[in-house]
Amino acid sequence: MSQIEIIEVGPRDGLQSVKKFISTQDKITWINLLSKCGYKTIQVTSFVPSTWMPQLADHYDVFTAIDKKPDVNYMVIINDLNNLEDALKAGVKEIAVFIGASESFSQKINNCAIAENLFLLAPIIAKAKAQQMKVRGCISCIVNCPYEGKVSVQHVVKLTQKLLDLGCDKITLADTTGKATPNEIRQLFKELTMIFDVSKLAGHFHDTDGCAIANIDVAFKEFGVSSFESALVDPVSNHSYVPGSKGNVITEKVIQYFLEQGIDPGINKAALIQAKQFIDSVLNKVYSEEE
Amino acid sequence: MSQIEIIEVGPRDGLQSVKKFISTQDKITWINLLSKCGYKTIQVTSFVPSTWMPQLADHYDVFTAIDKKPDVNYMVIINDLNNLEDALKAGVKEIAVFIGASESFSQKINNCAIAENLFLLAPIIAKAKAQQMKVRGCISCIVNCPYEGKVSVQHVVKLTQKLLDLGCDKITLADTTGKATPNEIRQLFKELTMIFDVSKLAGHFHDTDGCAIANIDVAFKEFGVSSFESALVDPVSNHSYVPGSKGNVITEKVIQYFLEQGIDPGINKAALIQAKQFIDSVLNKVYSEEE
Repeated sequence: MSQIEIIEVGPRDGLQSVKKFISTQDKITWINLLSKCGYKTIQVTSFVPSTWMPQLADHYDVFTAIDKKPDVNYMVIINDLNNLEDALKAGVKEIAVFIGASESFSQKINNCAIAENLFLLAPIIAKAKAQQMKVRGCISCIVNCPYEGKVSVQHVVKLTQKLLDLGCDKITLADTTGKATPNEIRQLFKELTMIFDVSKLAGHFHDTDGCAIANIDVAFKEFGVSSFESALVDPVSNHSYVPGSKGNVITEKVIQYFLEQGIDPGINKAALIQAKQFIDSVLNKVYSEEE
Repeated sequence: MSQIEIIEVGPRDGLQSVKKFISTQDKITWINLLSKCGYKTIQVTSFVPSTWMPQLADHYDVFTAIDKKPDVNYMVIINDLNNLEDALKAGVKEIAVFIGASESFSQKINNCAIAENLFLLAPIIAKAKAQQMKVRGCISCIVNCPYEGKVSVQHVVKLTQKLLDLGCDKITLADTTGKATPNEIRQLFKELTMIFDVSKLAGHFHDTDGCAIANIDVAFKEFGVSSFESALVDPVSNHSYVPGSKGNVITEKVIQYFLEQGIDPGINKAALIQAKQFIDSVLNKVYSEEE
């Protein structure tokens, strides 16, 4: 097993940035192709109200229809108790919950203050854990908020602690604006790893300034972070709530980076190309219809 | 011969940022150690008036005293005709001339407007070429100016053209503030390489935000730039004219990067460690005296 885990978030974070609705069947086909690539975890959709994320309104149908390989975790995003019920019914075993690192971003993505968000997440996480689900806590905008500017390292440390206290198994630190520099990631992970076991931390980098790989390099080489999220779709669209930002770091770039380090992340190249070609053809069709 | 050229600029760009004067003998010893490392080019000092750069006031003594290996170019910086005469007398065969990419930076480093600077450089470059010297044109602050902010890509393209027209053999593009992002470097080199042969271009990156290696990665992988300047001294001090910036990208990091790409830059590790340990001990002594 590779010492590095690359989590594919394309079906969720990639597709939620595409304005048009990708058909349920295309989503299913794509996720089934991704299942053959060797990923241990794929973030497949968001069990959130359709009004919030219409692109992923078919989350129940997608999740129940995809082929589930026993060695792959199919993670979904949850933000309320009702949707957790749906997820349980659908057979979900791993969920992710989100908070924003700034008050403005929290209002944008969760429509409430950070404190209220944590209060609302507490019973969700508790219930999920009681049902033997794995729970990942994700913190958005760990370095910059598009509305408030710089986020303090100590604040992110505190939020990490809160999510772990609530029962999250692992925390994903997300540079949602893609504007973090390697030195900023260094400062943040220096403080985080002084307090938390690095195995509890994962990195999620967007590539707005082209620093995503350099940020992974710092997190991996200097602090031993071994879990990274990336997407197999080109960042053509803007993030729904981050004007001007680009998408996730591209999965191929992350794989290439680790191969250069002499580490095989365990992703099958031929299967990856097939999955990539499929989603590219779907998106090309969508974009050409838009024009 | 390696396909990559790493130019050591530590004796000039590194030492000019150290406030205290490093003894002439220490400079000579260090450069002689660097000569054994396998560098094809070492930027050894600046033949500029001592009032401008007191740290390198001993440029003539240093240049004439160092052991010169036949396969190493010992480059020096020149900014007026008188100093070119001195350099010729000292046996210099390769010079570098500097311009700032912004008017404010031009005033700071050369005490004149960019147009005037180019006017003053014309006879220097012409005379150097007539004497069979190699001439490198360096452009500082290619992406950001510490006083004016963003520098336009088209402006840097124009300055590159002017320096080549004046007879420069090669142009070094310098991110002097160390604040350029990989995407900004991508935009700049995309335009540059559409017009100029990439073999005419070299990169010089500072590491203020920790993006230097990511910037080298873009210049090398996407555009085929093969000549990079770096320094074997830690960026402990600020750049003389760029408050808050950090120093050059560290030579070891650049070597490590290329080794990860499967490319041997041809620098001998044992010799490099010896050169590094020597200058570290000199600088540690200097810094401890400062306190």
